[in-house]
Amino acid sequence: MERLQRKLRFGQIGGGNGSFIGHVHRRAALFDGLTEFAAGALSSTAERSYESGADLLLPAERNYGDWREMLAAELGQPEDERLDYVCICTPNDAHFEPALAFIEAGFNVIMDKPLVHTSEQAAKLVAAVEQTGVTFGITYNYTGYPMIKEAREWVRSGRLGTLRRVVVEYPQGWLGERLEAEGHKQASWRTDPARTGIAGAVGDIGTHCESLMHYVTGLEIEALCAEVSTFVEGRAVDDDASVLLRLSNGATGILWVSQVCTGEGNGLNIRVYGTEGSLHWNQENPFELVHRAASGPVQIFRRGDSATARRGSRLPAGLEEAYFEAFANIYMNYSDTIRARLLGREPTALELDFPTVYDGARGVRFIERVIESGRQGAAWTNF
Amino acid sequence: MERLQRKLRFGQIGGGNGSFIGHVHRRAALFDGLTEFAAGALSSTAERSYESGADLLLPAERNYGDWREMLAAELGQPEDERLDYVCICTPNDAHFEPALAFIEAGFNVIMDKPLVHTSEQAAKLVAAVEQTGVTFGITYNYTGYPMIKEAREWVRSGRLGTLRRVVVEYPQGWLGERLEAEGHKQASWRTDPARTGIAGAVGDIGTHCESLMHYVTGLEIEALCAEVSTFVEGRAVDDDASVLLRLSNGATGILWVSQVCTGEGNGLNIRVYGTEGSLHWNQENPFELVHRAASGPVQIFRRGDSATARRGSRLPAGLEEAYFEAFANIYMNYSDTIRARLLGREPTALELDFPTVYDGARGVRFIERVIESGRQGAAWTNF
Amino acid sequence: MERLQRKLRFGQIGGGNGSFIGHVHRRAALFDGLTEFAAGALSSTAERSYESGADLLLPAERNYGDWREMLAAELGQPEDERLDYVCICTPNDAHFEPALAFIEAGFNVIMDKPLVHTSEQAAKLVAAVEQTGVTFGITYNYTGYPMIKEAREWVRSGRLGTLRRVVVEYPQGWLGERLEAEGHKQASWRTDPARTGIAGAVGDIGTHCESLMHYVTGLEIEALCAEVSTFVEGRAVDDDASVLLRLSNGATGILWVSQVCTGEGNGLNIRVYGTEGSLHWNQENPFELVHRAASGPVQIFRRGDSATARRGSRLPAGLEEAYFEAFANIYMNYSDTIRARLLGREPTALELDFPTVYDGARGVRFIERVIESGRQGAAWTNF
Amino acid sequence: MERLQRKLRFGQIGGGNGSFIGHVHRRAALFDGLTEFAAGALSSTAERSYESGADLLLPAERNYGDWREMLAAELGQPEDERLDYVCICTPNDAHFEPALAFIEAGFNVIMDKPLVHTSEQAAKLVAAVEQTGVTFGITYNYTGYPMIKEAREWVRSGRLGTLRRVVVEYPQGWLGERLEAEGHKQASWRTDPARTGIAGAVGDIGTHCESLMHYVTGLEIEALCAEVSTFVEGRAVDDDASVLLRLSNGATGILWVSQVCTGEGNGLNIRVYGTEGSLHWNQENPFELVHRAASGPVQIFRRGDSATARRGSRLPAGLEEAYFEAFANIYMNYSDTIRARLLGREPTALELDFPTVYDGARGVRFIERVIESGRQGAAWTNF
Repeated sequence: MERLQRKLRFGQIGGGNGSFIGHVHRRAALFDGLTEFAAGALSSTAERSYESGADLLLPAERNYGDWREMLAAELGQPEDERLDYVCICTPNDAHFEPALAFIEAGFNVIMDKPLVHTSEQAAKLVAAVEQTGVTFGITYNYTGYPMIKEAREWVRSGRLGTLRRVVVEYPQGWLGERLEAEGHKQASWRTDPARTGIAGAVGDIGTHCESLMHYVTGLEIEALCAEVSTFVEGRAVDDDASVLLRLSNGATGILWVSQVCTGEGNGLNIRVYGTEGSLHWNQENPFELVHRAASGPVQIFRRGDSATARRGSRLPAGLEEAYFEAFANIYMNYSDTIRARLLGREPTALELDFPTVYDGARGVRFIERVIESGRQGAAWTNF
Repeated sequence: MERLQRKLRFGQIGGGNGSFIGHVHRRAALFDGLTEFAAGALSSTAERSYESGADLLLPAERNYGDWREMLAAELGQPEDERLDYVCICTPNDAHFEPALAFIEAGFNVIMDKPLVHTSEQAAKLVAAVEQTGVTFGITYNYTGYPMIKEAREWVRSGRLGTLRRVVVEYPQGWLGERLEAEGHKQASWRTDPARTGIAGAVGDIGTHCESLMHYVTGLEIEALCAEVSTFVEGRAVDDDASVLLRLSNGATGILWVSQVCTGEGNGLNIRVYGTEGSLHWNQENPFELVHRAASGPVQIFRRGDSATARRGSRLPAGLEEAYFEAFANIYMNYSDTIRARLLGREPTALELDFPTVYDGARGVRFIERVIESGRQGAAWTNF
Repeated sequence: MERLQRKLRFGQIGGGNGSFIGHVHRRAALFDGLTEFAAGALSSTAERSYESGADLLLPAERNYGDWREMLAAELGQPEDERLDYVCICTPNDAHFEPALAFIEAGFNVIMDKPLVHTSEQAAKLVAAVEQTGVTFGITYNYTGYPMIKEAREWVRSGRLGTLRRVVVEYPQGWLGERLEAEGHKQASWRTDPARTGIAGAVGDIGTHCESLMHYVTGLEIEALCAEVSTFVEGRAVDDDASVLLRLSNGATGILWVSQVCTGEGNGLNIRVYGTEGSLHWNQENPFELVHRAASGPVQIFRRGDSATARRGSRLPAGLEEAYFEAFANIYMNYSDTIRARLLGREPTALELDFPTVYDGARGVRFIERVIESGRQGAAWTNF
Repeated sequence: MERLQRKLRFGQIGGGNGSFIGHVHRRAALFDGLTEFAAGALSSTAERSYESGADLLLPAERNYGDWREMLAAELGQPEDERLDYVCICTPNDAHFEPALAFIEAGFNVIMDKPLVHTSEQAAKLVAAVEQTGVTFGITYNYTGYPMIKEAREWVRSGRLGTLRRVVVEYPQGWLGERLEAEGHKQASWRTDPARTGIAGAVGDIGTHCESLMHYVTGLEIEALCAEVSTFVEGRAVDDDASVLLRLSNGATGILWVSQVCTGEGNGLNIRVYGTEGSLHWNQENPFELVHRAASGPVQIFRRGDSATARRGSRLPAGLEEAYFEAFANIYMNYSDTIRARLLGREPTALELDFPTVYDGARGVRFIERVIESGRQGAAWTNF
């Protein structure tokens, strides 16, 4: 297949000094050596943006004070130097505006999750993407793990039979105390409705669960019943939720998240039960996929056989890859899709294997439905 | 402390050839060498009862054809040869009658779970126990594990802080197909409402979850919302349920059970999250109790420090005990309570550490509430 | 098959109050409900023997002051009340005399390991067993685990191909300090050459390793090179040893033991590598057998398929058995062999599956060869 | 601290298309975003070198046909464009010449292991490094894991007490059949003495074990006894070895490696036992460090507290890093050391935490001593 004879150029909005996720996006984007960090508007003030860019050895002329400056300047670049895509990894309240602006200006955009605050905003982004035809991605990064991809292939190929039950959990403990009252940066914006949106844990990690469940099983939520709680006194958003799910094929599901499960790190895990067997994957041992059939041994797969899993593995069996590599897989497929289009060909299904604006919009809908059910006393709510 | 200078004598109702649980009760009762298997009415026909008793080398004169014969004959025994207690381990529909009869005749009774079919029956047993003062036990055997006892002590002592969330799961896979249509003995009675009662999985294993949750946390269920399903076509009772719980201290809970999770063996496990840390116990590695605090390492305890856990451990660290030994712990405390009373003293708190008729009655209530919620479309239901 | 219509009667020498292993032998002997604890000479003084017997509710007339008294009295019993077998579980130095005496008197004997102090003594026991034809067993109890039996079947059936490497380890930590100087009973006799013999850790746990390796692989040691150490100052015997093995089929082996590996409990484990795959078993998770082939997933077997493994399992998959049950498997096969002979038939291969006097003698030889190699500066020594 | 205001430039020798380890070095070098892949002589023929460089989007003018061309051309670069360091990741036989040449020309060099074929060659490199003062590194990459660094800190700080026993194992299975006869590239050079040197498994993975043992414990090998085997018929080098170690403080050790343990992936693991406790680390779950003390729970650390471990972790607890990140830690410290020297200051101890030419030379010595012992029939051999 023809190869693009140059590196892709990407610019980053947000993700400067003090950001948790910014460096992850950069490492993921650069991981395979075929992309260049070309521009940035890295922080919420011009001064801190410049400082972050300098620390990252960004060329001074493309180290911007804010995203509007970046947009204007990049539009002024000759086409063969213009950014190939823009990564937005600001807090949630600063997603919508730059995303819409860059999309409408014809830039490819990849964003952190959740997409935006409301389904109205989401619909506008969907429309803009459809209208402009830009390549849009959203980093539901847990779908990037090879063993998650392998799990999806097992479901698709029917090896698990008909699905009956899905359990997806995401316990964390880091917000077990009221860190936002102590000026903790990550805690502060995540518990401030003006910035994070209507949901706390449900938006921050619940949407990862929904994304993972959908990616692996292909099922849609038809209705849900959500007990949404705020355990830490004085907190302005939820920090814990338990959700019963009715799924599109008649399967039942449980989805629960918490940021007040003291002692938990990042315990995202999913179990999928079908008539022929089950799979279990746990983010804290992400290179293992555990399979159980009606009889025979428990089987622990440490490498996937499917094309999609193999494409996401860069090392032979016994040498492990983890968080950064999974994140890089999102970027690999996203940027290979851009490369294909630059070369004038249709991206392959393997290249297109990254979360899209529709996944982002569905995630926003999920947040809204869960919060609504919770407000109604955990009433059953159609999706 | 004074010791009883003779073995206790026990008789068994049900549990003969072909029973799953009968031999477990016998091994558990006899495990510590201070009890004698003295009488039996072991099966549902006289012929099979006699055959089972002979196979077990039961003396012919106390190998009875049915429980009525056993009751009459044992009442005729001189007091110093009479049975010290009777174990009932028949299918659920044959619990109530013999239990009531033996209790009313003044015999101590220990039974398999669930107690009986209805709360009305349960109330009668409670009344009979209260009136006669017999020692009554019910084998919620998972409460017999040393590390479960240790977990309870952690909760009681406040080491976990205030509880916020409890998750208790019991996935099995053995009823993933319609075994009852193939004449499978264990499957048949467990899916026949006439024998098993109104519930399938909810009664068979859900009640273990409720018991375990209550034992470890001390919390009561205030309300629940249960999605109750029958996945295997043609089955007359539920085989899967997901339950949201509101607990007495404001904690939330999830309890789910399934007998159609293909690939699962006996995956009972409980996670308890408090403000100061969490505990996790899994029946398939029952000698481990996993503790996580807000900081520091994950801690895996393989021996309990508490008096109650130590009393339930017969081996030094590194030599493991499992299912039979936990079951034997129920019998050890139950029979030591009888011994204490025979010696005319109050049993100690350690001796009284076994499930009682009140636990049995609460379990029946749980079954009724879950099934009712399920029938109402998973409506919230007060307990 | 015809069944013996009575319980077997066994007597115990050693194992009274304060013994670690005595109650294990009793529980193991009685586990299946078809054996009776009929007589005892349970301790090293008559007074403590009587007291132990009384605590165990042994009939006073067969609660003996020492083994000589027991032997004389039991020989005087009518044949249909005489003991069917005698269990010897005294410290090592009190194995040889009673064993020889009971064997020569025609009693079946089952003993704790190691057999005796010297190969000369071992030869005498072997000769006595051969001459009298009594049924003799030795409790290399780790060979009683179902998954160890399963592992042996895998090797025998050729599923692992040709064996290349065996690694067997037994780290303990409990003698990491000089407990024998503080009057610790178990430590004291195990570190006193007059009682334990020429070896410490090598005899106490090394011989378990040799037994397990031989049982699983069927291989013989042809030569060994042993670095034998005493880490705790002032200790009179070894407490740690590393041994290279040359095995009968050209495979190589490593066997190491330690009682000074602080933090270890009872970490016996064995790995067997063949041309077609490998097996790993660990005493601290004894119901798991881990299989790895050249490709495909790691497989964790929790139940064996072979007749020998199934015979040693009393519960369905998902309900675990551990130390006591494995120990009971030695007794089950040993006593079923006695029963077969009482009924006048040849025991089956399944019944004969317990360690014999030849295993005991080979274990003594192993101890002697390791200690000799160690004394020669870890020189290669033929077995 | 002052920061270098530009990216480091590195060139790579070997590691082109078809190389296993080449892309790992590149990703590791580039991981933190502060280094630039500037030049290469990537393969053993000019044609394949150019092709590899083009695939990697290397500028054509620094995409060299071989290392001699690269050396000459880079020496001709203006100083402010010259390579800051050269990475050599050719097969073993192509280490010595380019390494010596680049060192003598004043270039910093980082190499794959083992250093060279003979101690004579090693001595020459040591001398050249000492004479020129270049910064030299060798990628014993397993020393780059944060939890290995943490383990070293535990030993150094005395938390384990006095070390008694070290066990380090590296089982692999990929050479269980004679792949070299089938033209398998990685197998072929690794089993050809002309290319790999006198040792097979001992050189390829044994030297990783020695390095890891030394790094964690700080102990030196004083003598060793090695059973060295070739299990696969027709193979020209060893594929399996078991080594007893006598260590500098009186501790004993076992080190074993195999490439014919069918079913094993990359099972490198180390256990360190001291008087106060033990640590266990396993490359296949590299973010866990397991601690056991004389009493209390098993503790599983998933994040290190020490400065050196924290420096090597880029994510918060619960998000895992693995092989690439550990490899990148070697490069991070190596390149920060170069940066410090470019800025005219002494590198800190944290920056200097990477394997040096002395570690490389000791590794060569280890290979020679093991092979010699093996040839003498596993005789004890002074180090």
